[in-house]
Amino acid sequence: MSQQDEKDLTEHTLSSEQVFRGVLLDVRRDQVKLPDGKQAVREYIRHPGAVTIIALHDDGRMVLERQFRYPVGQVFLELPAGKIDPGEDILECAKRELREETGFTAREWQYLGVLHLCIGYSDERIEVFLARGLTAGGRALDEGEFLEVLAMSPEEIEQAIRDGRLTDGKTLSALHLARCHLG
Amino acid sequence: MSQQDEKDLTEHTLSSEQVFRGVLLDVRRDQVKLPDGKQAVREYIRHPGAVTIIALHDDGRMVLERQFRYPVGQVFLELPAGKIDPGEDILECAKRELREETGFTAREWQYLGVLHLCIGYSDERIEVFLARGLTAGGRALDEGEFLEVLAMSPEEIEQAIRDGRLTDGKTLSALHLARCHLG
Repeated sequence: MSQQDEKDLTEHTLSSEQVFRGVLLDVRRDQVKLPDGKQAVREYIRHPGAVTIIALHDDGRMVLERQFRYPVGQVFLELPAGKIDPGEDILECAKRELREETGFTAREWQYLGVLHLCIGYSDERIEVFLARGLTAGGRALDEGEFLEVLAMSPEEIEQAIRDGRLTDGKTLSALHLARCHLG
Repeated sequence: MSQQDEKDLTEHTLSSEQVFRGVLLDVRRDQVKLPDGKQAVREYIRHPGAVTIIALHDDGRMVLERQFRYPVGQVFLELPAGKIDPGEDILECAKRELREETGFTAREWQYLGVLHLCIGYSDERIEVFLARGLTAGGRALDEGEFLEVLAMSPEEIEQAIRDGRLTDGKTLSALHLARCHLG
């Protein structure tokens, strides 16, 4: 890696306040000291963390969902995912979310790593799992959750990415992470 | 693609209000009508959109940055990126951000597509560009912006992803998008 000497880029918290607390969002505003000693304001979302699951059928097809995402105003093609409950183990969360959203349980689970999707204004982390040996079962969607489950081959997914029909960051990031780990 | 008949998953806006307006964040809370006719609350960030740039040296190394991201509290390895100014053309924005953050100008620009990084609670879109034929020049960082510029080979980047040293979603997503387009 060719780079300069690593400088200290750290920003230090001077004060922190909650400026909005809704049913979903926890918004913070902190006063910070910059590396040059000056002060600045940092506004961001506090998030409980989430999991996402690359669930593979025996024929190589991947479990995907179609879900309307209100902030963007369109239906997205995306991996199953969901927020971690307070104190919940991340693997248990991944098993629960896969079962609730898609009905599938899996025989084999592999942890792939963590992603940070929105580092400019959120502390959200997404823990990525690979699930194989799927068995179909009943879904249990949250109140107000509407989504469709489908299966796509790797070639169909690549085509959807090239066509701009799959633009979800957690899905693209998780697929790239899996590619780097599994080849 | 094997899937069910596509249902209407759309949520319709009943009312919308701004619940926080900071120096960075614009937070909205909308009342919506769900596909089953029930009502729900949706909270989200309104974002002006951003660009990110995969800038390649002639020897195949990629321009990356090390930047402290306060919400997560750590230094990230990430692609150059920045917000689109009001009314700004996205290619002009990409050229400006690459020059301001890294000092590089590029002879060849190619548009790769759009990403949505945080579809659960933000409308942010990120427009991805590939830049080649780089020439070094002077940087012009924003007030309060501190970052280091480096160059990494594709192999070094893959290793950093496997090691968990590169976890930024826009970077992983943009790399996956580029791989699907360019092979």
